[in-house]
Amino acid sequence: MSARKQERAADLAIGIDLGGTNMKAGLVNRSGKVLLRGTRATEAGRGGAAVLDTMVGLLGEVWEKAGRRQGRVAGVGLGTPGMIDQASGRVAGGANNLRGWRGTQVLGPLGRKISRPAFGLNDVTAHALGEATYGAGRGSRLMVCFALATGIGGGIVVGGRALFGVGGYAGEVGHQTVDLDGVRCNCGSRGCVECYSSATGVVRMARREAGRRRSTLRKMAGGDLKLLTARMVFDAARLGDPVAVAVVDRAARHLGAAVASTVNMLNPDMVVIGGGVAAAGQVLMRPLRKHFRSYVLPLAARDARIVRAKLGDDAGLMGVAAYVFQQLEGKGAGQRGRKR
Amino acid sequence: MSARKQERAADLAIGIDLGGTNMKAGLVNRSGKVLLRGTRATEAGRGGAAVLDTMVGLLGEVWEKAGRRQGRVAGVGLGTPGMIDQASGRVAGGANNLRGWRGTQVLGPLGRKISRPAFGLNDVTAHALGEATYGAGRGSRLMVCFALATGIGGGIVVGGRALFGVGGYAGEVGHQTVDLDGVRCNCGSRGCVECYSSATGVVRMARREAGRRRSTLRKMAGGDLKLLTARMVFDAARLGDPVAVAVVDRAARHLGAAVASTVNMLNPDMVVIGGGVAAAGQVLMRPLRKHFRSYVLPLAARDARIVRAKLGDDAGLMGVAAYVFQQLEGKGAGQRGRKR
Repeated sequence: MSARKQERAADLAIGIDLGGTNMKAGLVNRSGKVLLRGTRATEAGRGGAAVLDTMVGLLGEVWEKAGRRQGRVAGVGLGTPGMIDQASGRVAGGANNLRGWRGTQVLGPLGRKISRPAFGLNDVTAHALGEATYGAGRGSRLMVCFALATGIGGGIVVGGRALFGVGGYAGEVGHQTVDLDGVRCNCGSRGCVECYSSATGVVRMARREAGRRRSTLRKMAGGDLKLLTARMVFDAARLGDPVAVAVVDRAARHLGAAVASTVNMLNPDMVVIGGGVAAAGQVLMRPLRKHFRSYVLPLAARDARIVRAKLGDDAGLMGVAAYVFQQLEGKGAGQRGRKR
Repeated sequence: MSARKQERAADLAIGIDLGGTNMKAGLVNRSGKVLLRGTRATEAGRGGAAVLDTMVGLLGEVWEKAGRRQGRVAGVGLGTPGMIDQASGRVAGGANNLRGWRGTQVLGPLGRKISRPAFGLNDVTAHALGEATYGAGRGSRLMVCFALATGIGGGIVVGGRALFGVGGYAGEVGHQTVDLDGVRCNCGSRGCVECYSSATGVVRMARREAGRRRSTLRKMAGGDLKLLTARMVFDAARLGDPVAVAVVDRAARHLGAAVASTVNMLNPDMVVIGGGVAAAGQVLMRPLRKHFRSYVLPLAARDARIVRAKLGDDAGLMGVAAYVFQQLEGKGAGQRGRKR
């Protein structure tokens, strides 16, 4: 087979998406379709070396399953909390919720396992790149993603390429200060949008309000507000519970101000709202759009559509695969920094 | 002369920087040096056609002065409030402080005047590009500029290229909401950093406080707080006036939160603080850096230096010239939108 033919044939990538609870791997084609997949428990408590062992095993499983399609696999990619230093292949800063993971040599073992080049990027950046390439942001020229989960992460995709910033940390849209005298954030700052509009923020506000006013929330939580979840709050808001409606409106207002600030700064054509909290749907999106309009510059607002993510849990895997394809095409984004 | 030789010889550009009071034009070389210059009163009240006439006259003056260097001029560029639609050559949205300017066909007449290609961009984006190319941000990989004047504008430069966003409005760093229940902004939003950390914001806060507490500010303003300027407030703070110190600290805190949010989002290696207010120097920069550190993510902070602008009033002219050189090299930024 000629070199050219081989290159054209390399139309698959294996993506790995590492989470705090589970890790997933998938064989992905250039259309973003996940052709086959595997999953393992992360068991982060066992430390970085054990997590890596599990990951290499999972990669081997997907590789075996790929069978005669192995020859078409161009490379392997990893989306991880924190950063990967591409030069050294090690996990760099930021992966605070995976003890012992930082410093682990990860790209070397992954690449050797299947004799292919290996690449790594932040998991939420991968999520954003997946939505931009194959999901809700397809066709966008400048997309920003807000991933609403326990915290709020995000990513920025310019002309189809992730914006990494000089250290690989760009896209932290959840740590915009929308109330500089507001509550303390886990990050050490104050009044970050994450404190109000993440699942954790919604539950915090709902517990406080439901402790003060009559609400169905206590009943929904089985009488114990400690068991309250963000989903219960959105469900109660959908049913018209006034406390829940007020809490969701507060979350939407803080998020609306942050999305507006982001749109003013970057003038994107699309803002994608993803993560588990976005599953709440219209009960969140409607007040979000209303508050967004009250905070945004009209000219920037005209260009920006706010939409829900489409790909669900697979966005990460698909984004990792997209990144592998891009890196192997040698079109690495100009702003790629020393940590990647 | 061969085509190649001619191309190499085209090492000059004429930049025009349109302001509300004056317009400036300069012959600029590839090192950013302004070789000769001219200026005219804008007289915005006379309308768009009159402003354009004046501008074409000013361009002609610089062109004449260029003399035998005319053959080396590659093109002309304009930095203007608002936007230029490159396709039509007209002034597009945003230039609200220049009545009658919007809609004016400007690139056509400028280009014809000297038989060279003409390009336009937002004036503050040009300022940022000037600092990134020739000033305080030289050598940076990702730079954000905050231009503190009557309002707060800004610009983002990635890998040496201005980030325009899809409609050309990117870089509005002054309209980040840092206090979502804060004061009303001219833009229609609430609690934008511009309301606190622009010259207007500093004067507003100082008037209010000096009306309530003993302060040297009233005396500095000749007994009439209506005559108070931002410069007086910074001077009084430097002398230790407690009201002025508190006002400057408040301005620095709001700006620090906004700079921190921006650094978290974009992970730049440099933040350049420019505009007239930045001339205040350490009395502003010291509390700004302190508050910035209290709001920023430590990992992103590690990468980012906060520095004062270097080029002063010439940043705009030089940035316009840099943009002309870039456009003629055909390396237009990938994210350039329909309006530019």
